Amino acid sequence: MSPDAGTTAPLGVAMIGYAFMGKAHSNAWRNVASYFDVPAFEQKVLVGRDAAAVAEAAAKYGWAETATDWRTVLDRDDIHIIDVCAPGWMHAEIAIAALDAGKHVLLEKPLANTMAEAEAMTAAAAHARSKGVQSMVGFNYRRVPALALAKELIAAGRIGTVRHVRAAYLQDWLADDQAPMSWRLKKETAGSGALGDIASHAIDQVLFLLDDRVTEVSGRVHTFVNRRPGTGGQAGGLEDVTVDDAAWATLSLASGAIASVEASRVATGRKNSLQLEVFGDKGALRFDLENLNELQFLDATAPAREQGFRRILVSEPEHPYVDAWWPQGHIIGWEHTFTHEVRDFLLAVSSGTAPSPSFEDGLEVQRILDAVEQSAASNSTLVQLSPAATPAAGTAGTTEGA
Amino acid sequence: MSPDAGTTAPLGVAMIGYAFMGKAHSNAWRNVASYFDVPAFEQKVLVGRDAAAVAEAAAKYGWAETATDWRTVLDRDDIHIIDVCAPGWMHAEIAIAALDAGKHVLLEKPLANTMAEAEAMTAAAAHARSKGVQSMVGFNYRRVPALALAKELIAAGRIGTVRHVRAAYLQDWLADDQAPMSWRLKKETAGSGALGDIASHAIDQVLFLLDDRVTEVSGRVHTFVNRRPGTGGQAGGLEDVTVDDAAWATLSLASGAIASVEASRVATGRKNSLQLEVFGDKGALRFDLENLNELQFLDATAPAREQGFRRILVSEPEHPYVDAWWPQGHIIGWEHTFTHEVRDFLLAVSSGTAPSPSFEDGLEVQRILDAVEQSAASNSTLVQLSPAATPAAGTAGTTEGA
Amino acid sequence: MSPDAGTTAPLGVAMIGYAFMGKAHSNAWRNVASYFDVPAFEQKVLVGRDAAAVAEAAAKYGWAETATDWRTVLDRDDIHIIDVCAPGWMHAEIAIAALDAGKHVLLEKPLANTMAEAEAMTAAAAHARSKGVQSMVGFNYRRVPALALAKELIAAGRIGTVRHVRAAYLQDWLADDQAPMSWRLKKETAGSGALGDIASHAIDQVLFLLDDRVTEVSGRVHTFVNRRPGTGGQAGGLEDVTVDDAAWATLSLASGAIASVEASRVATGRKNSLQLEVFGDKGALRFDLENLNELQFLDATAPAREQGFRRILVSEPEHPYVDAWWPQGHIIGWEHTFTHEVRDFLLAVSSGTAPSPSFEDGLEVQRILDAVEQSAASNSTLVQLSPAATPAAGTAGTTEGA
Amino acid sequence: MSPDAGTTAPLGVAMIGYAFMGKAHSNAWRNVASYFDVPAFEQKVLVGRDAAAVAEAAAKYGWAETATDWRTVLDRDDIHIIDVCAPGWMHAEIAIAALDAGKHVLLEKPLANTMAEAEAMTAAAAHARSKGVQSMVGFNYRRVPALALAKELIAAGRIGTVRHVRAAYLQDWLADDQAPMSWRLKKETAGSGALGDIASHAIDQVLFLLDDRVTEVSGRVHTFVNRRPGTGGQAGGLEDVTVDDAAWATLSLASGAIASVEASRVATGRKNSLQLEVFGDKGALRFDLENLNELQFLDATAPAREQGFRRILVSEPEHPYVDAWWPQGHIIGWEHTFTHEVRDFLLAVSSGTAPSPSFEDGLEVQRILDAVEQSAASNSTLVQLSPAATPAAGTAGTTEGA
Repeated sequence: MSPDAGTTAPLGVAMIGYAFMGKAHSNAWRNVASYFDVPAFEQKVLVGRDAAAVAEAAAKYGWAETATDWRTVLDRDDIHIIDVCAPGWMHAEIAIAALDAGKHVLLEKPLANTMAEAEAMTAAAAHARSKGVQSMVGFNYRRVPALALAKELIAAGRIGTVRHVRAAYLQDWLADDQAPMSWRLKKETAGSGALGDIASHAIDQVLFLLDDRVTEVSGRVHTFVNRRPGTGGQAGGLEDVTVDDAAWATLSLASGAIASVEASRVATGRKNSLQLEVFGDKGALRFDLENLNELQFLDATAPAREQGFRRILVSEPEHPYVDAWWPQGHIIGWEHTFTHEVRDFLLAVSSGTAPSPSFEDGLEVQRILDAVEQSAASNSTLVQLSPAATPAAGTAGTTEGA
Repeated sequence: MSPDAGTTAPLGVAMIGYAFMGKAHSNAWRNVASYFDVPAFEQKVLVGRDAAAVAEAAAKYGWAETATDWRTVLDRDDIHIIDVCAPGWMHAEIAIAALDAGKHVLLEKPLANTMAEAEAMTAAAAHARSKGVQSMVGFNYRRVPALALAKELIAAGRIGTVRHVRAAYLQDWLADDQAPMSWRLKKETAGSGALGDIASHAIDQVLFLLDDRVTEVSGRVHTFVNRRPGTGGQAGGLEDVTVDDAAWATLSLASGAIASVEASRVATGRKNSLQLEVFGDKGALRFDLENLNELQFLDATAPAREQGFRRILVSEPEHPYVDAWWPQGHIIGWEHTFTHEVRDFLLAVSSGTAPSPSFEDGLEVQRILDAVEQSAASNSTLVQLSPAATPAAGTAGTTEGA
Repeated sequence: MSPDAGTTAPLGVAMIGYAFMGKAHSNAWRNVASYFDVPAFEQKVLVGRDAAAVAEAAAKYGWAETATDWRTVLDRDDIHIIDVCAPGWMHAEIAIAALDAGKHVLLEKPLANTMAEAEAMTAAAAHARSKGVQSMVGFNYRRVPALALAKELIAAGRIGTVRHVRAAYLQDWLADDQAPMSWRLKKETAGSGALGDIASHAIDQVLFLLDDRVTEVSGRVHTFVNRRPGTGGQAGGLEDVTVDDAAWATLSLASGAIASVEASRVATGRKNSLQLEVFGDKGALRFDLENLNELQFLDATAPAREQGFRRILVSEPEHPYVDAWWPQGHIIGWEHTFTHEVRDFLLAVSSGTAPSPSFEDGLEVQRILDAVEQSAASNSTLVQLSPAATPAAGTAGTTEGA
Repeated sequence: MSPDAGTTAPLGVAMIGYAFMGKAHSNAWRNVASYFDVPAFEQKVLVGRDAAAVAEAAAKYGWAETATDWRTVLDRDDIHIIDVCAPGWMHAEIAIAALDAGKHVLLEKPLANTMAEAEAMTAAAAHARSKGVQSMVGFNYRRVPALALAKELIAAGRIGTVRHVRAAYLQDWLADDQAPMSWRLKKETAGSGALGDIASHAIDQVLFLLDDRVTEVSGRVHTFVNRRPGTGGQAGGLEDVTVDDAAWATLSLASGAIASVEASRVATGRKNSLQLEVFGDKGALRFDLENLNELQFLDATAPAREQGFRRILVSEPEHPYVDAWWPQGHIIGWEHTFTHEVRDFLLAVSSGTAPSPSFEDGLEVQRILDAVEQSAASNSTLVQLSPAATPAAGTAGTTEGA
């Protein structure tokens, strides 16, 4: 039974963090009800440590109140949902406390910076779920309409048995070796570099699209630029970069498929290119996040002379999530992956069903990232992954639009 | 002097109409202040004839109040801006009354259904402007970052002297001959078909990008499907389509350039493809609205062996409007052409400068559309356009982001 | 009855001209028998006015002998085929004489520089055909495998009823206003500019793909650069350009379709871009000669959510002409449009059937080009084309590979 | 001193093998002199075991004589060049005998099926070279104009220091699990599968483009379809596939760059897609063999707002090899990679310089392939490659067109 049953009061939402992800999540909360039928909710509190800055952000992004201590919102009866956009090293503490306080939690990826944290969080989520308190990890690209369509096509057998998968996430914001240090480039704050930040999305997509499990991993990581200007600028001297610039892996999947994964922050000219290629025995799919409204599909059962990758402009009412938006051919932006995420999270909370991806799904990605690092530390030697002790509940989920 | 000078009260906005364009404009009003520094304003009143429907739309789209008679909002002192999203045949009456009442007017394109209306509106706008009351016609594609960048590159001489221009707007929603009748397919309500609806955008872009004037027009229009199922469905019988499905024109420009223009609603597989190609003697530009975050640029002054059209992913902070949004490579959607439009309109209103495109710009497009129809009615024979009696004021405008 | 019946001697071939087209045709003759089963033939004589130059060319391109007077080869019994690659102003005299001498004629396009010549040639061809002497005009792009496939798909109804067609041929070799004068830029030698040289290909493709007839034409031509450095260079002063740099037309087709045609030699960055788009009520096709091994096909009868233009890499054995070449994915070059042309010409000659495109087909294109010029000279006013007095025989032809 | 010095007799060429590669090499010999200035040569003898079949092939492909025993051509004084297109398992015996007989050898890749053979051949080549007898291994893609241009741009520093490289060769001819057995799918005849056949090309390109050396390799291979219909068809039962369908590797380069390599024969919809991406700190390059006339180049030193991958249509006279061919925009086909190869081989032979890629280059690729297999057999654990004992001579070579 949902904790909200029997009440018609709007769900109260508090969000912790207001940087890049906070801006994107706020946009989702501010707009979701203009496009989708969702339960009533209110953007109540924005939480951040700097009182003035958080006040400005709240005004800008549509939050009614502010707080500087995230613990205070856990005590409030009018807050039902905590949206955690704080940095990764704070995830475990906040999420566990929120779940214990009976709050539904939407948590930005990655689940956590360490395996121990991730496991504790997953246990807390399982416990909370048994009491009707929901949780979800924000692998937002599961809600790109083109990728939701890709999953549907694969599930419907349109490309047959999947064999060979290629996943890559290529960016170039560190191609300039004068790009300065930040918390993202230190192991103690970021956990890892391209691996945790973007390879994680690529790996999550492999699991999502194939609905499969990784059994074996070979990995490699590399830092091309080992020292960068400190926050004091060049005068302040160079500081050590302690995370990877790039990562490579091959993943064996339980089904027999093999996926290659590649992530880079020095792929000059690639701005935000999450590329997926899935080759089955009856067809194939291709996707690039830089053209997020497009899916390339090849039907290998068509007559040979008519075969070819077709560019589906995923903007028809028949496509996942799209009927809420604009007429065909009027494309949507990156930020609406979060709008869809919030929509699905709200529907799950109101219906008392477990949203997807769950913390277990986030833990699964974390285990794979961990195995990549283990393999990388052992000369790329293959690392076996044992099946998860507790199979993730409710991971199938729905990816369909209204 | 701006009528708002000396007051710090937020600008009150009323919007008339809540269909497709109303939904898109509402999105702009609801979000513009989250991304851009704009003067304070309030989404006060949404106006529509059906009280229940307008109430539902207002709740969904963020309007505080509703009204069923647009005249009532003109009488209110707390309303400073009227956003006209009503159908074209209502434009003249509403816009002239609003301007006369001292309200700033943002008006969806096309300016009007007839030349007489367009001229009366332009006169009213000129009169109002002299009293500090501003007006703007919503050729939203001027605020696509890629097209704003294209204009800047042309103005900076990066493609040299422009000679040959190709403009096309291709859609396919009437390719199915069973697609039903609507007000858009009747001359008395829509004025024209593909010509006024989408060729108008293509023509406006030619004027915008080249900052030029049309002197001569040859045109052609055609209706491929002359009868369609009535609103009563097939049983209700077929009704006559009285507007064009497709239109073609060649335009001579004062500079010596020549532009071809082509519009179609039966271009199967083209969903919303506004295509522009501008060939100069030092370079060239290409654009397709289906990939609205991209601009193709060729620099013909580079060494021959390094020349080629480069795909600029218009998502860098250095690009027009983009620094307000997301990190590089995170694309924006079609709807934000309106967000940028509203931002520029608000800035113009608050600074007391004339926004662009003006009603004069809208009239100029109208005159060209009219010439296309005249030519089409005369076996495509060239029609001369005399220079506008009153040159448009303030049409240069700014297209730059914050 | 074929004049070759009863003899097993190889067909003797003489070619007149050895510039650009001569080089391309020679390549076809030199290689056709290595890939296709064709009747035996010999590359006997290369004809050109400059004895030394023609000798060098013959050695390079594989011709056994040379001659400096084309009339001499018409007298030889061992010459059965004349391949005319001489400039357009020589076409009529050579072709008529060759046909009268009982030689099969393969003639580069355009058929002729004037309508009078074209008509005389067509009459000669018809007369010769009645005696078993064949003739063909070299619209080589009919033998691009992707365009042959396009024609087959249209003929098979895969895109339904064709309505809207867009044809363009864009080049940029005259974008530089210092590009020098040549015979191609003077009316007396070239007949016309972009119109005859490249719009002719675009128009021929419209006729070929749709198997249709033009009834009405509106046209426009323009010269952007009116004076160019003479053959003596800048010091020698500027000379007048007397042909068009660009041309535009709309064509009404007997079926009810409408085609736009656009040609330019100043389309900066477009190198050799013959673009075709054919929109039917059940699908669409797109092609660009710069990617000549690809055809884009959209099947509008597929479920909406799976529709999209598919890029067919036309390199499968199932595709026209392709099984003679390389394994799938190994693309062929532009020059093999001529190899296919020569193959089909040889098969037609040996089987005594009329090859396609015939001189009548060439005349039909010429009539349309003439109408474009007439219309252009009359302010773009529509010009009617009466149906050809003598319908072209054997124009359907075969475009299939072996 | 070249063995040909002092003689003006044409070089006599014999070719061994006339299947796929023989057809492609024959095309090169038949046409090279029509486009390039090369020393005089004659297509003298085609060698194959089946007398009737080789006679037919010789007639078709332009060889004057035939032989059924390759040893006979080694004894002839009028044969100076042996072009080895026989299967890989015959390479060592033929090449060593030919070199010992003083014949220049052009040898199809891969160099050999085993490391022992490859080393013996390389020693023979080094010995022969010291006596003026030349040898070359046919990594034909080094002569794709776009890739030759890529190498020049990298060498000129246009993309700065190379860091991250992605190389993939994707085909799909084994995607159908009913595709039958062949010698290519058995270890004893083919050596390996996708690895040796196509990953070898990808690896050679990494070495070629970067002019670098591999120091460390992690690898993986996999066979997705383990049993296939035998040559007797389904009735004949299934036979074991004993080579890989796909291969993955990461390569460390001496410069500090890292390359990923991926090859597949089950990449449904990818027909012949050799993809290369080279990311430097000042720019990037991309290439796909399915569009072999195009190179994508990004100049990261341009102003941010003008940056983007530009599609260079490699068809200008300024591009490597291209001035021999057609006007700009007229693309060439796959087969001319061999035409360029033969051209460069002939020039090297006649000038007495060592052609590139040498057998040492072929051995280097072989050593990397061997390391991939070693690593794959050891759970992907990294394998170190020691620097070659004898550095390859003359490997820099020239890739420029005439």
